[in-house]
Amino acid sequence: MNSCQRAAFGAAILAAALAAGGCDKKSDGNTGAGTETSPFIATAVALRTEGLRSERAFTMLADLVQTVGPRLPGSPAAAAAVEHMRRVMDGLGFETWLEPTTVQHWVRGEETAEMVDAAGRVVGSLTVSSLGGSVPTPESGVLAPLIEVDSFDRLDALDSSARGAVVFFNRPMNPALIDTFRAYGESAVFRSGGPSRAARCGAVAALIRSVNPRIDDFPHTGLVEYDPAETRIPAAAVSTADAERLSARLKENPGLRVRLKMTCADLEPVVSANVIGQIRGSDKPDEIVLIGGHLDSWDLAVGAHDDGAGCVQAVEALRLIQACGLKPRRTIRAVMFMNEEFGASGGRDYAADLRRKTERHVAAMESDRGGFLPLYFTIGGPPSIRRKYIAHDRAFRSLGLSGIRAGGGGSDIGPIVQQGAVPMGFIPNAQTYFELHHSGLDTLDKVHPRELELGAIVLALGAYIVSEEGF
Amino acid sequence: MNSCQRAAFGAAILAAALAAGGCDKKSDGNTGAGTETSPFIATAVALRTEGLRSERAFTMLADLVQTVGPRLPGSPAAAAAVEHMRRVMDGLGFETWLEPTTVQHWVRGEETAEMVDAAGRVVGSLTVSSLGGSVPTPESGVLAPLIEVDSFDRLDALDSSARGAVVFFNRPMNPALIDTFRAYGESAVFRSGGPSRAARCGAVAALIRSVNPRIDDFPHTGLVEYDPAETRIPAAAVSTADAERLSARLKENPGLRVRLKMTCADLEPVVSANVIGQIRGSDKPDEIVLIGGHLDSWDLAVGAHDDGAGCVQAVEALRLIQACGLKPRRTIRAVMFMNEEFGASGGRDYAADLRRKTERHVAAMESDRGGFLPLYFTIGGPPSIRRKYIAHDRAFRSLGLSGIRAGGGGSDIGPIVQQGAVPMGFIPNAQTYFELHHSGLDTLDKVHPRELELGAIVLALGAYIVSEEGF
Repeated sequence: MNSCQRAAFGAAILAAALAAGGCDKKSDGNTGAGTETSPFIATAVALRTEGLRSERAFTMLADLVQTVGPRLPGSPAAAAAVEHMRRVMDGLGFETWLEPTTVQHWVRGEETAEMVDAAGRVVGSLTVSSLGGSVPTPESGVLAPLIEVDSFDRLDALDSSARGAVVFFNRPMNPALIDTFRAYGESAVFRSGGPSRAARCGAVAALIRSVNPRIDDFPHTGLVEYDPAETRIPAAAVSTADAERLSARLKENPGLRVRLKMTCADLEPVVSANVIGQIRGSDKPDEIVLIGGHLDSWDLAVGAHDDGAGCVQAVEALRLIQACGLKPRRTIRAVMFMNEEFGASGGRDYAADLRRKTERHVAAMESDRGGFLPLYFTIGGPPSIRRKYIAHDRAFRSLGLSGIRAGGGGSDIGPIVQQGAVPMGFIPNAQTYFELHHSGLDTLDKVHPRELELGAIVLALGAYIVSEEGF
Repeated sequence: MNSCQRAAFGAAILAAALAAGGCDKKSDGNTGAGTETSPFIATAVALRTEGLRSERAFTMLADLVQTVGPRLPGSPAAAAAVEHMRRVMDGLGFETWLEPTTVQHWVRGEETAEMVDAAGRVVGSLTVSSLGGSVPTPESGVLAPLIEVDSFDRLDALDSSARGAVVFFNRPMNPALIDTFRAYGESAVFRSGGPSRAARCGAVAALIRSVNPRIDDFPHTGLVEYDPAETRIPAAAVSTADAERLSARLKENPGLRVRLKMTCADLEPVVSANVIGQIRGSDKPDEIVLIGGHLDSWDLAVGAHDDGAGCVQAVEALRLIQACGLKPRRTIRAVMFMNEEFGASGGRDYAADLRRKTERHVAAMESDRGGFLPLYFTIGGPPSIRRKYIAHDRAFRSLGLSGIRAGGGGSDIGPIVQQGAVPMGFIPNAQTYFELHHSGLDTLDKVHPRELELGAIVLALGAYIVSEEGF
């Protein structure tokens, strides 16, 4: 019996839980935590003790990113990541398998951008990164006047001046929002939809200010979503520092042109896979509690936070449940989805797979907001479901969370949630996420072992409670 | 009128606040937030908009640590820090002054430690850092057998074997606690009290495992609190990596000795100062809402988190209040205390100063837990005071906090709280704090501009609400 098992079953554990961390103090009436004592507090303490002592999520993440590196869908590295994570889960003794999903195989090539004055002189270079799925420029590149806009309304108001131009979407993230995901959403629409909106106005290429709250030299890529009705024009992100510089130069010199060269390409689609491991339920094995992340990443860094973190947290959650000797009534399954970054085919194919016919997914959690400190546990679906779980609020508080909120979801679990799974999860601190996300900065050194582990512990607790309680 | 002032008084602001960041959603009954709408939500949004757009706390911190560097009490750098911060506050137009406090002036010298085998051969060196206030070794050093203990009980059970030995307190922080401050407290007692406890057993020196949850090569210093009844023996912290190594070596070779040489010294006490700046209250100027941090730091790094962060947050809180055109009814005062690390004389002298006779301190907040993401607002004193402020829970939630909890306090504000000020403050994320704290790692690059700024915004809001509402 390891230390964790001792803790789970020791008689002193409830007292320890109540004394621990200041998280389990009697409600003072303003936090709204129920006064109920959840039967899962001892479980929470056992999971947290095992997890925080061993920090295995970080070890797994280091192993993944150092063995495999960046994992663009369709790439040999993505295939290696599939094998790697299946091997890791086999090694832990889980029931594992792969489920196929076909993915777009886009490759980045060379990419350069220069500012060119009216006399044809190069007056500076720009740090750019092709958007995922972009078409290349002609071999000689595109050389065209630059038009800067900060909204679609401004673009649409341009009349014919965008025709033949490079449209430069220069919309900074709104720093005043606490919810950085909301700020991200407001700016990322220019990246996903801007190129086709520019093409509709006759533009020959699009440059997008990186969706990054900081001013730095790292371009942030992301998927371009071409409108089938419009011409596909080359599109690249420019670093925020160069976006500022480009904007300033353009004000000085309205005749400024940009020369953009990109040799990216779409290759043949590739059959890749979702990687699955599970602990079979003792009582209702066909009822599934899913924990997931996405295994693919952008290619500019190793995708440590996006979403290596979510993948290793899902595996570590299973490992914690096992290490603590817990025997879930329902099946708890970790799914590492493939291809979230290029259109989420993995999530769709998972939900559509014939194996789902004999299963009922009771809940699905996806960690894809970075491996940062978890703040809240979230439960979606109707309020009655959340009310049922309020009794366990104190168990989550014993993990340092602030309690349970409405919410939950993720791109990959969307289709299975559509089929009836209750979305759950946690909200991590996302103040720094978007300065790393989709850029060369999304590296292992940005991940804190304790914070990453706490996410795994929260997933383990959430999954285990659902596996025991159902709805 | 700047953007912040417009925001504070614009008619659209309440709607904006309610829509912003998902923080102001109608309570769903499980968070316990009141359904009251605080009149300070608009203020919170104005403060946060101004703060997060400009990130001036970080700019101030960079300026302080790059201009002055480490600020050990009594050092020329501490004196320079006093002048620097007064100048900063003068520049912002606050009413400023200094209040004297006499501080111990201890200086670090050379410090080396080696492992020596029974034959007198040096078999390895150890990375050590003298504890603050330690006496030096004799010039030739101390060479003595090593005795390892992990508790005071173990030490007391040693009988005579500690006599003439170097006692090695090797007590790791408990990683399983979510509340890292509690884990710190459990281990830091060996640093503060261990040397005198060892001296009582006849030891000639003490080595303390650094109070650091990670295994690394950075020793973490801290104050030794000598018992006046015991001989003062030299005391140093050893890095956690070397503590592990030393422990392993000792198991292999119970005859292992340690040679410790330290040339630290106490110089003459120095008159230093608390640095004070304020915005005078329009209605009750003699009622004071104090916001503070401590200006001194350890000498192994620049003290960016401990506690440069708290100092610049206090100044930035005043600046935010001013920039948003707020005119507090009571006086809001930033105090940068001197000498927290060497016995908190600044806090005691502040409370004892004759100027306090004509003032009443209604509340005091100290930020001294690192410049990390604020999680909760805290209010101490009787529950009736907290209940009064529950109405403003939603204003704090609009800053991303989880609400209001019991708590508040800090070493420096202890004496003024004794005199009746209500302790308030915020609890930041402290998962990483103790791996930086008191070590060479407490540098500017560990501070995140948004997270630091959010602390300043929270202090500004808390201080402003108290200045308007009192108790």
